[in-house]
Amino acid sequence: MRYVGKTAQDIKIAYVGGGSRGWAWGLMSDLAAAPDMNGEVWLYDIDYEAAKANEIIGNKFNDAKGAVAKWNYRAVETIGEALTGADFVVISILPGTFDEMESDVHTPEKYGIYQSVGDTSGPGGIIRAMRTIPMYEEIAENVKKYCPKAWVISYTNPMTLCIRALYRVFPEIKVFGCCHEVFGTQWLLARMVKEYLGVEATRDDIKVNPVAVNHFTWLTSAHYRNVDLFPYYARFCEEHKDGLEDGGDDNWMNNFFKSADKVKFDLFRRFGYIAAAGDRHLAEFSPGDWYLSSPERVREMKFGLTPVSWRKQDLKNRLERSRRLLSGEEEIRLWTTGEEGVNQMRALLGLSDLVTNVNIPNRGQIPNLPLDAVVETNAVFRADSLEPVFAGPIPAEIHPLISRVCTEQELVSEGVAERDLRKIFAAFVSDPLTRCSLDDAKVLFREMVENTKAYLTDYDLSFLGG
Amino acid sequence: MRYVGKTAQDIKIAYVGGGSRGWAWGLMSDLAAAPDMNGEVWLYDIDYEAAKANEIIGNKFNDAKGAVAKWNYRAVETIGEALTGADFVVISILPGTFDEMESDVHTPEKYGIYQSVGDTSGPGGIIRAMRTIPMYEEIAENVKKYCPKAWVISYTNPMTLCIRALYRVFPEIKVFGCCHEVFGTQWLLARMVKEYLGVEATRDDIKVNPVAVNHFTWLTSAHYRNVDLFPYYARFCEEHKDGLEDGGDDNWMNNFFKSADKVKFDLFRRFGYIAAAGDRHLAEFSPGDWYLSSPERVREMKFGLTPVSWRKQDLKNRLERSRRLLSGEEEIRLWTTGEEGVNQMRALLGLSDLVTNVNIPNRGQIPNLPLDAVVETNAVFRADSLEPVFAGPIPAEIHPLISRVCTEQELVSEGVAERDLRKIFAAFVSDPLTRCSLDDAKVLFREMVENTKAYLTDYDLSFLGG
Amino acid sequence: MRYVGKTAQDIKIAYVGGGSRGWAWGLMSDLAAAPDMNGEVWLYDIDYEAAKANEIIGNKFNDAKGAVAKWNYRAVETIGEALTGADFVVISILPGTFDEMESDVHTPEKYGIYQSVGDTSGPGGIIRAMRTIPMYEEIAENVKKYCPKAWVISYTNPMTLCIRALYRVFPEIKVFGCCHEVFGTQWLLARMVKEYLGVEATRDDIKVNPVAVNHFTWLTSAHYRNVDLFPYYARFCEEHKDGLEDGGDDNWMNNFFKSADKVKFDLFRRFGYIAAAGDRHLAEFSPGDWYLSSPERVREMKFGLTPVSWRKQDLKNRLERSRRLLSGEEEIRLWTTGEEGVNQMRALLGLSDLVTNVNIPNRGQIPNLPLDAVVETNAVFRADSLEPVFAGPIPAEIHPLISRVCTEQELVSEGVAERDLRKIFAAFVSDPLTRCSLDDAKVLFREMVENTKAYLTDYDLSFLGG
Amino acid sequence: MRYVGKTAQDIKIAYVGGGSRGWAWGLMSDLAAAPDMNGEVWLYDIDYEAAKANEIIGNKFNDAKGAVAKWNYRAVETIGEALTGADFVVISILPGTFDEMESDVHTPEKYGIYQSVGDTSGPGGIIRAMRTIPMYEEIAENVKKYCPKAWVISYTNPMTLCIRALYRVFPEIKVFGCCHEVFGTQWLLARMVKEYLGVEATRDDIKVNPVAVNHFTWLTSAHYRNVDLFPYYARFCEEHKDGLEDGGDDNWMNNFFKSADKVKFDLFRRFGYIAAAGDRHLAEFSPGDWYLSSPERVREMKFGLTPVSWRKQDLKNRLERSRRLLSGEEEIRLWTTGEEGVNQMRALLGLSDLVTNVNIPNRGQIPNLPLDAVVETNAVFRADSLEPVFAGPIPAEIHPLISRVCTEQELVSEGVAERDLRKIFAAFVSDPLTRCSLDDAKVLFREMVENTKAYLTDYDLSFLGG
Repeated sequence: MRYVGKTAQDIKIAYVGGGSRGWAWGLMSDLAAAPDMNGEVWLYDIDYEAAKANEIIGNKFNDAKGAVAKWNYRAVETIGEALTGADFVVISILPGTFDEMESDVHTPEKYGIYQSVGDTSGPGGIIRAMRTIPMYEEIAENVKKYCPKAWVISYTNPMTLCIRALYRVFPEIKVFGCCHEVFGTQWLLARMVKEYLGVEATRDDIKVNPVAVNHFTWLTSAHYRNVDLFPYYARFCEEHKDGLEDGGDDNWMNNFFKSADKVKFDLFRRFGYIAAAGDRHLAEFSPGDWYLSSPERVREMKFGLTPVSWRKQDLKNRLERSRRLLSGEEEIRLWTTGEEGVNQMRALLGLSDLVTNVNIPNRGQIPNLPLDAVVETNAVFRADSLEPVFAGPIPAEIHPLISRVCTEQELVSEGVAERDLRKIFAAFVSDPLTRCSLDDAKVLFREMVENTKAYLTDYDLSFLGG
Repeated sequence: MRYVGKTAQDIKIAYVGGGSRGWAWGLMSDLAAAPDMNGEVWLYDIDYEAAKANEIIGNKFNDAKGAVAKWNYRAVETIGEALTGADFVVISILPGTFDEMESDVHTPEKYGIYQSVGDTSGPGGIIRAMRTIPMYEEIAENVKKYCPKAWVISYTNPMTLCIRALYRVFPEIKVFGCCHEVFGTQWLLARMVKEYLGVEATRDDIKVNPVAVNHFTWLTSAHYRNVDLFPYYARFCEEHKDGLEDGGDDNWMNNFFKSADKVKFDLFRRFGYIAAAGDRHLAEFSPGDWYLSSPERVREMKFGLTPVSWRKQDLKNRLERSRRLLSGEEEIRLWTTGEEGVNQMRALLGLSDLVTNVNIPNRGQIPNLPLDAVVETNAVFRADSLEPVFAGPIPAEIHPLISRVCTEQELVSEGVAERDLRKIFAAFVSDPLTRCSLDDAKVLFREMVENTKAYLTDYDLSFLGG
Repeated sequence: MRYVGKTAQDIKIAYVGGGSRGWAWGLMSDLAAAPDMNGEVWLYDIDYEAAKANEIIGNKFNDAKGAVAKWNYRAVETIGEALTGADFVVISILPGTFDEMESDVHTPEKYGIYQSVGDTSGPGGIIRAMRTIPMYEEIAENVKKYCPKAWVISYTNPMTLCIRALYRVFPEIKVFGCCHEVFGTQWLLARMVKEYLGVEATRDDIKVNPVAVNHFTWLTSAHYRNVDLFPYYARFCEEHKDGLEDGGDDNWMNNFFKSADKVKFDLFRRFGYIAAAGDRHLAEFSPGDWYLSSPERVREMKFGLTPVSWRKQDLKNRLERSRRLLSGEEEIRLWTTGEEGVNQMRALLGLSDLVTNVNIPNRGQIPNLPLDAVVETNAVFRADSLEPVFAGPIPAEIHPLISRVCTEQELVSEGVAERDLRKIFAAFVSDPLTRCSLDDAKVLFREMVENTKAYLTDYDLSFLGG
Repeated sequence: MRYVGKTAQDIKIAYVGGGSRGWAWGLMSDLAAAPDMNGEVWLYDIDYEAAKANEIIGNKFNDAKGAVAKWNYRAVETIGEALTGADFVVISILPGTFDEMESDVHTPEKYGIYQSVGDTSGPGGIIRAMRTIPMYEEIAENVKKYCPKAWVISYTNPMTLCIRALYRVFPEIKVFGCCHEVFGTQWLLARMVKEYLGVEATRDDIKVNPVAVNHFTWLTSAHYRNVDLFPYYARFCEEHKDGLEDGGDDNWMNNFFKSADKVKFDLFRRFGYIAAAGDRHLAEFSPGDWYLSSPERVREMKFGLTPVSWRKQDLKNRLERSRRLLSGEEEIRLWTTGEEGVNQMRALLGLSDLVTNVNIPNRGQIPNLPLDAVVETNAVFRADSLEPVFAGPIPAEIHPLISRVCTEQELVSEGVAERDLRKIFAAFVSDPLTRCSLDDAKVLFREMVENTKAYLTDYDLSFLGG
C-alpha cells in the first residue's frame, strides 16, 4: 500500500468467506464507489467455486456505472495466500450449513422454546458458538501467522463471541465487529425527528451513545443537534405502543425480517432507555416469558420467527442471481449499502477521522461490564488506530438485564475455549429462553450437540453421557 | 468501656427493635454466657412496652443457671438515649406489621407469582425494601448523631438493602449484617463429612469461602482440614437428588422453615457450586420457572411457602411465652444459639481474632461484582477493625445468575434512595419472579404499594397514576 | 440559542476573567472568524474596568477585516449576570497578582530550588493552588446556580487542580481544560516529517495519542497517515541531542518562553516516549537533580527560568496596547490563534464532530492512573457531549514518574479541599523539586503561605505554628 | 502427609538454598519445637556440600533440649528429588556470591550514590534483580513440574520481584513472601505501649494494618486492644526525633544492622503514617536527597551503610560455626526465632487459623496500587488457603512515594521478564537514588551489568553498546 497525494493505492484486502454471496457483493459496490482508494481483493472461501464466482462478479464491478475505483479480484485456494501481506481482512462466514442452523433454531421448539433468529443467543446461539468459535480460533492463528498487522473486520454471528475468540487466541490482533442494527434505530429516530420537529434528518445527524452487547444494544443518549431526543421518544413509544406498521406490503406479517418495533417500544416503556436492535434480536435476550413464550405471543408482539426453511430458499435465490450475474443475464449495478466498512478502512488509512459504533473488547468504556468482554459502543477510527470512546456505565434500570447477558456470554466463551461441556451447559440451562427442567434441558442439549457434531473439534463429549 | 486484665467491662450495647422478641432473647443468652465481658444493654423499640418486657426478662438472665456475666438491661423511650455512648448497636426491627407482609407475600399470587419467604427479593422483597430503607436511613442519621464510632450489627431483612442504606446515609458507619444461612450449610457439610469420612466435625471445622449476596450465597470452596469437600458433595447431591429427608416429624412437610435441600442439590447439579442458604431463599432468586412456577412445583421440590398467617400465630406464641417469662411461670434458661454476635463483639474489642462471614460493602473482595454493593464473604474481626477477606471472582458458571441479582438490588437501592417509583418499578417488572405482562405488573405494583402506603415516607407516588 | 439552517445563532458566552487581556483577544479573533456562529459575549472580571475595556475592543472586532460573524460584547458587574442563561462559559483568571506569583517562583531560590514556570507544580504550583482552588470552588457554585447545563472551558493554571475543584464542588458540571502544549509538539513532529519524509504537514495531520497530566503530557503514539513516527523521532532526538536552535533572534537565549527542546529529547532518550510540553514545564515535573538543580544546569539544558519581573513588564505592555486599541491608535486585526475553543463550541453545538486533546477527569481512559484524577487525553466532542477516548495504560517506562505526579496532585487537591495544611505540606515536602531538609522545608512553606495569605480563605493556619 | 488426631504427620518440606546457613538453622529450631507436626526436610542447594552439612546439623536438632518433634533431614543433589511430593517448599537462596553483591552496593559510590543495603531497590537492587529473577523463573518451572500443589514460602531479596516472577511463570503457584521487618515495628510499638500505657505487650498484642511493598511497608492503623496508637506514636516521634538509642554496645554505631529509628520518625513527622521497616531499607526507597546523599548525612540520621566486606566476614563466621556444630564442638540449642514460617504451615494444614502480614500479588487488597503487583498486607491462612485481607487504599500523604516505588518495580519486573535492557535502564535511571546525569548513569549501568554478567541468562546485551 502506498499514498499518492490524498489517495491510498495498491491496498490489499483479504476476504474470508463470502460464499453465501450477499455481504460480498455489498462490499464490492462500496469499494467501486470509493474515490480515494484502490487495490486488490483476494477471495478465500472453503467453497473455492463460490470464491471463483465472486472473483468474476467482483471484476465486473469495475465496469459498472458509477464505479470510480478499480479493484482487482482474485480467488485463491488457501487462506495463507489471501492473508499474506493483506492490509485489511474481511471475515463473513457461514459456520456449517443451514442444516445445522435448522437444528439450532427449531429443535428447542419441542420443549416450547421459540427463537426468532437463533444465531446469537439462547440455545441456538450457544450451539452455533460451539462450532463457530473453533473456526475463528483457526482464523486468528492464520492472521497471526500471515498478516499480524492487518486490520480485521468481522461480520459473522454470534458476533460478540467470534470477536472474543480472535482476541483470546491472538491478543495483539486489530479486529472489530460491525453490525447495522444501531443504524436502523438511528433511521427510526430520524423518522421521528421528521414527524415531531419537521426536519429532514439522516442517520448521520442522529448522534447516539450505544452501550451493551451486539444485538442487545441500548442507547443511553440520542441527540439531533443539541436537542435531547428522549422526551420525544417517550411520546413516540406511547403513541405507537401497538406497533409502527407501514401501510405497504413490506411489513412484519409478510417479511420475516421486519417488525412493528413493538418490542422496542415495550422495552422503553419498562425501562426508559432505547433498545437499539431489531425486535427479533431484542426478544431473544429478554426473559422467555416476555416476548417468546409462544407463537401467539410473537404474533401479538408483531414480529416474526424467521424459519430456516426461508433462509434455505433465500440462498437458492442468491445462487440463481449469481448465475445470472456471471452469465451477464443480469447487469451489475452499484447501490448504497449503508454499511460502513469502506469508511472505516479509509479512516484507518489516515485519510479521515471517523466516530461510529463497533464491537471490541471492553477496556473500560463501559465500566460496569467485565473488562475484555466484547461490547458495542462508539469508537474513534484514525490513522492505524481504533480506540473506544467512553460510553459510561449502563444505567441501573437496564443493568440487571445486560449484566446477565454479558456474563452468560463470558461463560460460553470460557466454556468453548476450554471445550468444557459442563460450562457450556451451565450457560444453556440458565439462558432465559430455556424454561424447561434440568433433566429436559440435558436431553435437548444432547440432541442439539449431536446435530452439529460434524463441526465440533477437540471437544470432550463425555459429559453428554451414554 | 474499660479493660480489666483480659476482660472488657462496662460495655454499652444499644438494642434497636427486638419487640418481636425472638432475636433479643438469643442475644441475652449469649451475653450471659460470655466470661470476659459485661456491661449494660439499653433497649429501644417503637413499642416501648415490648422494650420494657425485654428489660425485665433480660435482667432475669443474670440469675439463670450457667450465667457467668452480669448485664444490666434498661428500656428507654427515645433512640437517642439508647445510642448515646454506645459501644455496640444491634438492630433487629420488624418493618411495619405482618399485615403489610401479608400483602407482600400473598398479593402477587393473583398473578401466579408464588414466594416462599417474600422478605428479601421478588415483588414482596422490593415492596418491603420501600418501607424498610427509609427506617434505616433514620437509624443511620441517629447513629451519626449519637454514636458515630460504635459498631453496628444489623439483622433485619432485606439485609443487603438495609446495610446499603446505612452506608449511603453515613459512609463512615461501622456496620455489618449477620445471617446464619451459611452456618446451616456448614452443618450440612459436617453431616456429610461424618457420613463419608467417618469423622465428627462441627461447623467450625468446615472452612468455606462464601461469595455473592445474602440469601443467595454460594461457596466456591469448602475444606475439612485440607480435604477438598467438592468431590464428596458432588456424590452427595447425586445420592440425595430426591431430597434429604429426616425421618422425624420436623421436616419440610410439617415445618414451613424446613426443606429437603432439593433446590440446593439441583443448583449444584446445574452449576457445580454449593448454594449456601435455605431452599426457600434460593428459590426466590432463581428464574421463576425453575422452582416457584406453581404450588405443585414447590411441593415437588420439597420446600414450603411460608404463609404469613403462620407468622402471625407464631408471634402470638412468642408474646404468650413473654408473658410466662415475665410472670415467672416459665424459668429463664440459657441455650446455645449458634449465632456469632457476641464473638464478633469480643473480637472487635481486641480480645481475640475472628474470621467469619458477614455482609458488608464490596471493596473488591468480589472483583466481578459492583463496588459498594453489599456482599457476603469472609471478613477478619480484630481490635476495632473489620475488613473483608479477598473472596475471588464469582465463577463463570454462576456469575450470570448472581450479577443479575446484585444489579437488581443496586437498582432498588437507587430507586428507594431517590424515592423514584419509575426505577423501583423497573426492578419489580424485571425480577425473574414477575412473569406477568407489563400491564399486569403495573396493576399489581400499584396494589402492593397501596397496601404498604402507611409506611412510605417522601415518595412521589404520581407514577402510580390515577 | 437557536439553529437557522446550518448555523447556530444567539449563542450566549460568559467570559470570566480576561482582565489580563491576552487570552480574551484571541477568543475575540476566533469568534469573529467563525462563519456559522454568532451571539453575545458577556464579560465579567473582578476588575470591572478591565472588562469594560474588553467590551469596547470586542465590539471593534465586528468591523475588523476578515470578520464574518457578529458578536455583541457586554461587560457586567456581577458574575450572576454573566452566567445566567449562558450556553458556554470561558474561564481564564489570574489568581491573585504577580506579587504573589513572585513569591511562588522566587522565594524557594533561597534554598536552591529553581522553578522555570512555577504555576503548575513544585513549591510554587502548590502555593498557587492554595489560593486558586477556593476561587474555582466559588465559580463552580455559581455555575451550579446560574447555568448548570452550560459547557465550561477553563484555561487557568494549575489547570489540573482547577478542573478537579470544579468537578468536586459540582459533579454534574460540563467542563474541560484546554492547553496548547501538545499542539506545539505536533508542530515539532510536522517539522520532522518535512525534514525526513519531505512532505508538508500541519498539526492536524499529526495524529497523536496523548496521555498523563497537563504540562507533563506524553505521546504514546504518533502517526502521519499510517506512518509510525517513533523511529523517526528516535533519530531526531539523537541528531539534535544538543538542542534544536533556530538561527534567528527568537530562541531560548533571549526569549523566556522558548527552549531548544533539549529536555524533551533527553526524556525520549531515557524512556523512549515523547514528552509533549515545553521544556520549562517538563523540567518542573522531573526529579530536581535532572534539569533544575542550578541556574547553570538550566543554561546547559538550554531553556529559561521565566522571571516574574518579566511577566510584570509584559502585562504593562499589554495594558499599553489595550490603551492603543481603545483609542484607535492601533487597528484591530484578526489573526490565527491556533487555539481550539471555537471549534470545540461548534462541535458541542452539533455542527461537526471533533477529536482533540483535553483535560477531564479520568473515567478509565488511562486505566493505570486513579479514577477522577484530571488527565489529558483525546476526547470526542459531539452534540452536547464530550467523552474521553480510551488512551490506554501509561507505559511501564514512564509510569513511575507520572504516577508520582498524579498522586501528588491528588494529595494537593484533597489537602486544599479540606483546607488541611498538614496534607498540603506533605505534598510540598515530597515534591521532587523540594530538595531541602524537613526543617528547612517547613520554614520555606511558612514564608510562602504568609506571602499569599491575603488570598487564602477558610484555612486553619495553626499548622504553621508560632 | 496424613492427619492423626490433631496432628499432621509425614509432612514433606523441600528446602531450596540455605547454603549460607542462617535461615536454615532457624527453621530447624522452629520445626523441632512444633508439637503437632513432623516429617521430612529435603535439602537442595547448588552447593551440595552445604546441603549435606545442613542435613547433619538438622538431624542433630532432633536430640536438642526442648525438641518435641522429630524431623528427618536429607540432602539431595537435584532439585527434582527435593520437590517431588513436597507439601511445602522453602526458598532462601543467595543469588550469585558476595562478590556480585559488592559491585551492586559499592560501584555506585563512584558517582556519589550510597546504598545502605543494596539488595532490594536502587541501582544495586535492580542489578541483583537481573540475576535473581531468572533463577526464580527456573524454580517456578520446577515447582510446576514436581509439586504444583505445594505451598511455597520465599525469603530471598528482592522479595517483591522474586514473588512476582514465580506468579508470572506459573500463575497457579501457591507462594508467599515472608519478612520480619513489620514485626520489628510491632515490637517498637509494644515498647511504646509499655512506656506510655504501662502495660507489658508483645508483638502479637499490637494489631496493625500494613500496606505497600516489602521493605517500604507502612502501617495505616495500629491498635493495642481498641486503643488507637497513632496519637501516642506522634508524641513518641517528637520525643525521640534525635533517635532512639540504646545505652548498650549494640547500637547503630557499632552494628551495621541497627539504627536509631530516626528515619522512621522523620517519615512519620513528614506524613503522619508509620513506616514499618528498618531505617536502612526505608532510606533506600526515599528520594536520594533525603537520607542517603552522603556518608555524613547517613551518620547524622544514625543508621549504617552495611558494607559487603562485613557480610563476607559474617559468612566466614557462620561457616566456622557450622564446622563446630558438625564436629560437636558446639552444642545444638533451640531458640526463639520470631519467624512465622512454621505457624503459617500449621494454618495451611488446617490445624489453626492465622492472620499475619505477607507478600502476595495485589488482588485489590490495596485498591490504589496496580493489580498483580506484589504487595505486603495482612492475609488469612486457613486450610489449604491463603487470601489477602482488604487493607484499603494507600493514604494520599504517602501515595505519591509508594506509587512511584511500586510502578518502578513493575518496570523492572517487565524489563527482566523480557530481558529488555532498555526497560531495566529506564528504571535504573529514574530511581531516586540515581542522581547522576543520563550519560553517567549509562556508564555506571554498563559497569554494574558487566560485573554480574556471569549470572545473566538470555539477555540481549547489545543495548550496552560498544
